[in-house]
Amino acid sequence: MLHIEPAFLQYPDWKGHSFLREEVSKFLSDYCRSPKPLKPENVVVMNGCGSLFSALAATLCDPEDAILIPSPFYGVITEDVSLYSSVKLYHVPLYSQVVRSDVRPFQLTVEKLENSLKEAKKEGLNIKALILLNPHNPLGEVYSSEELISFLQFAKMHKLHVIVDEIYMLSVFNEADTFRSVLSLDGLPDPQRTHVMWGVSKDFAMAGMRVGMVYSENRDLVQALDQLGCFHGVPGPTQYLMAQLLRDRDWLNSEFLPENRHRLREAHSFMIEELKKLDIPFLHRSAGFFIWADLSKYLKEKTFAEELSLWRCFLKHKVLLSCGQAFSCVSPGWFRIIFTDRLHKLQLEFGIIEMHCNFCYLKLASHCYLLLLLQKKKKKKCS
Amino acid sequence: MLHIEPAFLQYPDWKGHSFLREEVSKFLSDYCRSPKPLKPENVVVMNGCGSLFSALAATLCDPEDAILIPSPFYGVITEDVSLYSSVKLYHVPLYSQVVRSDVRPFQLTVEKLENSLKEAKKEGLNIKALILLNPHNPLGEVYSSEELISFLQFAKMHKLHVIVDEIYMLSVFNEADTFRSVLSLDGLPDPQRTHVMWGVSKDFAMAGMRVGMVYSENRDLVQALDQLGCFHGVPGPTQYLMAQLLRDRDWLNSEFLPENRHRLREAHSFMIEELKKLDIPFLHRSAGFFIWADLSKYLKEKTFAEELSLWRCFLKHKVLLSCGQAFSCVSPGWFRIIFTDRLHKLQLEFGIIEMHCNFCYLKLASHCYLLLLLQKKKKKKCS
Repeated sequence: MLHIEPAFLQYPDWKGHSFLREEVSKFLSDYCRSPKPLKPENVVVMNGCGSLFSALAATLCDPEDAILIPSPFYGVITEDVSLYSSVKLYHVPLYSQVVRSDVRPFQLTVEKLENSLKEAKKEGLNIKALILLNPHNPLGEVYSSEELISFLQFAKMHKLHVIVDEIYMLSVFNEADTFRSVLSLDGLPDPQRTHVMWGVSKDFAMAGMRVGMVYSENRDLVQALDQLGCFHGVPGPTQYLMAQLLRDRDWLNSEFLPENRHRLREAHSFMIEELKKLDIPFLHRSAGFFIWADLSKYLKEKTFAEELSLWRCFLKHKVLLSCGQAFSCVSPGWFRIIFTDRLHKLQLEFGIIEMHCNFCYLKLASHCYLLLLLQKKKKKKCS
Repeated sequence: MLHIEPAFLQYPDWKGHSFLREEVSKFLSDYCRSPKPLKPENVVVMNGCGSLFSALAATLCDPEDAILIPSPFYGVITEDVSLYSSVKLYHVPLYSQVVRSDVRPFQLTVEKLENSLKEAKKEGLNIKALILLNPHNPLGEVYSSEELISFLQFAKMHKLHVIVDEIYMLSVFNEADTFRSVLSLDGLPDPQRTHVMWGVSKDFAMAGMRVGMVYSENRDLVQALDQLGCFHGVPGPTQYLMAQLLRDRDWLNSEFLPENRHRLREAHSFMIEELKKLDIPFLHRSAGFFIWADLSKYLKEKTFAEELSLWRCFLKHKVLLSCGQAFSCVSPGWFRIIFTDRLHKLQLEFGIIEMHCNFCYLKLASHCYLLLLLQKKKKKKCS
């Protein structure tokens, strides 16, 4: 028989029960390597980071205001900020092409942020904030301290709030790729406008538990989120379970996190080897559950219509990849391949991808007259 | 060790897991006495009825549209519909004065609904829906079938959606006061525009579990709520617990509900006897957790400022009553007294109310010259 404390059956503090906010502040202090202990009163817990995006958009913006976000980005955020609050995202386009040897593909720079901010203003948009995903979804990359600070200083200069989504912070599986939380920085450029999100959906593989949290020193923001909290409440017993989980450092540090990182590393290795075999270019990163891969060579034309057609083809074979359009990527042909699955499933999936890609490649080659005959022979497989 | 099914840790169907929606449809079929079995596909589960009000307002209305609601009413609904969606409530004022012997105080009639709708239109408001609370908070009354049907027909005639909040449906503690759910009616006047809410906060005393549900035959509405559901998700394990609870009819019917009704009846009896002793008028109803009582004789003047002052005075003595203003009541001096507490606490509370009311009464009487002297003698007690 499950016993539930009567207190958990009562209306809670809408920011989260104090016992949970205390545990969250200790947890984030440790895992974000904060130079000073973080404070429970700066924590707001809601039912997932989608709810937090919705509530942050509603509190930081007026309807039709906009928020800068480098693209590609986790596309669901578009609905998170717009469904209730009519807030727009203004994309800072990052390109796959590398123009200089010291620049990474899809690299975010302050220059790009500045340019997009100017463009947005020209279009009459009121930009209120910047969203940073770190580690990044779908790119899988983590920002260096220098990069982070430069982005935060850009935001400070333009009085923009910064929402830093660190939901993959414990899923950096190669320690050479050092993750630095914004909360680890010695003195934030603009602490009143810097808000850090984390949740249990990804790092603890608990999306169904609906628990996300934000850390902010801005009292007005915390108070406003408290008001909206009545729509995003987490059940008392779930809050209790979460506090227990966050407190269980022995298990987290000696069992769960090392094993999780090990599995991520293994699955990632398998995946990149397969991509190499197929000669598919990809970003070699060490965070998140996905690889950002360039399948554009399988497109008949470099268009988003063709990208969608390729996506549908995978889906028909029961392989669900996310295409670049879903992340507002500006270059067609990029796909997010999720590798966090059992090995035998990945093998099966990759078998299908390979078969399909080879077939696509033949379709591409079929534009050459010499291969026309071959294409006809294979037609029966096409259906 | 608590075992959690892996499926409950995954992203759910945002309308609620199908096993829970099935259980909800069976539960509502039985307890609402639906003539036909209700369908799981018409159920949406969210984290509380506040979330449902917010999501319903966002889906049924555009910003600045308005919803009719008879006042007094549970005041939190104002924020529920406005915080995210800027939807307004347009009050249908009900009065305490009884002008004819066949009319109850605060009685809702179609005539009043018609008048308010006309007024709202004159003010340029776009009225999209009507909210009915049945059993009513704070009046404690339940509508007869004839009344319900007349309100629904009024709504149909004007193409208004009707949100019927039946969150106290199992807290009708005197069986003479027969509750009829909208879902028990043989054929709703406008089923596509009739949406019924229930949740576990009140009838199961589980506000901290954050579980509410809506039943609607409108497919477009259900689909729209599904979209917004990502902000109002209920954790998988909570959904599982709730399904178990709703399924446990033996315990509900033979233990919980009879005992709950018995306790409600007992506490209500104590409270009304105390009110009678103090000669405080009140509405004698048999549903909900509260009595709607007229303390206006203790106001120096019949104003809302005085009502607030009386409310503050109670609060200073650690008795929390809700004053009529919080429910947008048009007559000053009405208070909602919650009686669902242990007897010794009610006795203590009532001792304070009595002491305080007597004192107020003396203050009132002190306006008479003859009692001036007495007032001076008692001054030390006043602080």
